[in-house]
Amino acid sequence: MVKAAEEKDYVQSLERGLSVILAFSDHHPRLTLGELAELTGLSRPTVRRIVLTLEKLGYVRAEGRYFALTPHVLALGNAYLSSLNLTEVAQPYMEDVTKVTGHPCSLAALDGEDAVFLARIPSRRVMRHTLTTGTRLPAYATSMGRMLLAGLPDHEIEEFLRHGQFPRITARTVTDPARLREILHEVRRQGWALVDQEFEEGVRSFSAPVRDSGDRVIATLSMSVPAGTLSLAEIHGETLPVVVEAAREISKQLGAPAPR
Amino acid sequence: MVKAAEEKDYVQSLERGLSVILAFSDHHPRLTLGELAELTGLSRPTVRRIVLTLEKLGYVRAEGRYFALTPHVLALGNAYLSSLNLTEVAQPYMEDVTKVTGHPCSLAALDGEDAVFLARIPSRRVMRHTLTTGTRLPAYATSMGRMLLAGLPDHEIEEFLRHGQFPRITARTVTDPARLREILHEVRRQGWALVDQEFEEGVRSFSAPVRDSGDRVIATLSMSVPAGTLSLAEIHGETLPVVVEAAREISKQLGAPAPR
Repeated sequence: MVKAAEEKDYVQSLERGLSVILAFSDHHPRLTLGELAELTGLSRPTVRRIVLTLEKLGYVRAEGRYFALTPHVLALGNAYLSSLNLTEVAQPYMEDVTKVTGHPCSLAALDGEDAVFLARIPSRRVMRHTLTTGTRLPAYATSMGRMLLAGLPDHEIEEFLRHGQFPRITARTVTDPARLREILHEVRRQGWALVDQEFEEGVRSFSAPVRDSGDRVIATLSMSVPAGTLSLAEIHGETLPVVVEAAREISKQLGAPAPR
Repeated sequence: MVKAAEEKDYVQSLERGLSVILAFSDHHPRLTLGELAELTGLSRPTVRRIVLTLEKLGYVRAEGRYFALTPHVLALGNAYLSSLNLTEVAQPYMEDVTKVTGHPCSLAALDGEDAVFLARIPSRRVMRHTLTTGTRLPAYATSMGRMLLAGLPDHEIEEFLRHGQFPRITARTVTDPARLREILHEVRRQGWALVDQEFEEGVRSFSAPVRDSGDRVIATLSMSVPAGTLSLAEIHGETLPVVVEAAREISKQLGAPAPR
C-alpha cells in the first residue's frame, strides 16, 4: 500500500492500533484477542501488545478474557468535533429549524464517498431514527452527499465520478455518472440539493451548504421528510427556505463571506 | 509511566499517534507541525511521521503547512457507540421522555472521574446548550456522575474517594469524601440521583441507571432543569418517575434482569 520511498515515514503500529479500535464497531461489544486478530488480520502477539497499550491508556478495558472499548474512545471523535467549533455554532439554529418546521434536521460532512452525520436534532414528533453522530450514508444518492460533493473543486468531482460506485437503491436512484455530473453542477448553481426517493422509498430530503471563512463548503444542513406528509410544492415554498436560511446564518457565524 | 517489565508490551508510537489526534481539540482546527510538536511534547520529526501516517489513513488532511482532522476521526468514537448498541436502543425512549416532560435528556457513561455524554435529546423549548456527545462533566458533583459512581463495586468507590479531587463549584457543592460516600450509598439504595445546584447555580439534575444483561450500571439517563421552573416536589412527583421508568425500559431492552 505504501510506496517504498515513503516507508520510513509510515508508522505502521499506529495504523494497526487504529484498526483494533475500529474492529469493535458493528455490535461487537466484547472481543477476545483471538477474535481481534481474526477481524484485523494481525498476528495475535501484535494484537496483544496493542490491546495492552490501549488498556493502559484507558481506551480499552479487560473483562476476563474479553476486551471492550471504554467511553474514553469518544475523546478521539470529539477532538474533531471540538476542533471545528461547528456543532456548537450550528446547534441553536438547528433547534430553531426543527421547532419551526416540526421535522428533524441534521448536520453532515463529507468523508470520502460518504456523508457523515455530525449532529442531529430529532423532531418533536416521535420518529424512530437511529441516525446518530458518525453514521455514514452514500454521498451520490443523498441530498446531503450531493450538496457536499457540489462544494468540491471540479477535478475532485470528476475523480469521484470516475472512481465511485453508484448502485441502484430505489427505482428512482440516478446511477449514470454523466447525469450525476449535471445534477451536481445544478446543485452548486442553485445553492441547495433535493433528493426525491432516490435513497429511500417514500422519503424526500433536502440540504443547504454550510461554509467557512474561506467560503468552502465544510458541512451541510439537511432535513428528510416522509413524501406523504410534505409535497414538493410545500418543500419548495415553505420548508427548504427555512433550511437554506439557517445554513446561511450558521455560515455567517463561522465567518463566511456574504452569498453572491 | 510504564513499568520496566511491561515495556516490551507497550506500543509507544500508538500512544503518540493518539496524542496527536487529541491535540486538535479545543478549537484548534488547524495546526502546523511545529504547533503539534509543542502541544504534544513530541519531537518535530516524530510528529511529522505520525501526521503523514494519519493523512495516508484519511484521518488528517493538509492545507498548505497546516493540518486538520477529517470527519473520518468520528469512525473511532463511533466504534465505541456502535459496539455498545446502547444509543440506538435508548434514542426512542429518550425522545419520549423529552416529549412528555418538555425537558432535554441525556445519556452518559463513566470515564475515570468524568461523566461523558453519549447522546442528548434537546428540549422542545429552544435552549442554548452546547453539551454534545463526548462532553465531560466531573462525576462527583453531577447527578449523572453520582449515579454512575454508585454503580461501581465498593472498592472502586473507595478508590475514587481516596484519589479524587472534589473542589467546591457552587456554595452547595459537597466536597467532603465521607459525605460523598454516604450520598453514593443512598443513591445506590434508592435507584436514582438528584443534585440540587451543586454543579451550576439555578440548575437541578437527576439521573437513573441503565443496566446491561449482567445487571451492571453501564450508563445513566439524566435530565437537568432550571430550579426556577421545576420545584423539588414537582421533580419527585412528576419528572423523576418518567426518567426512572424510561431508564428501566432501556435496561429491559438491553436484557437487564427485572429490578428487585
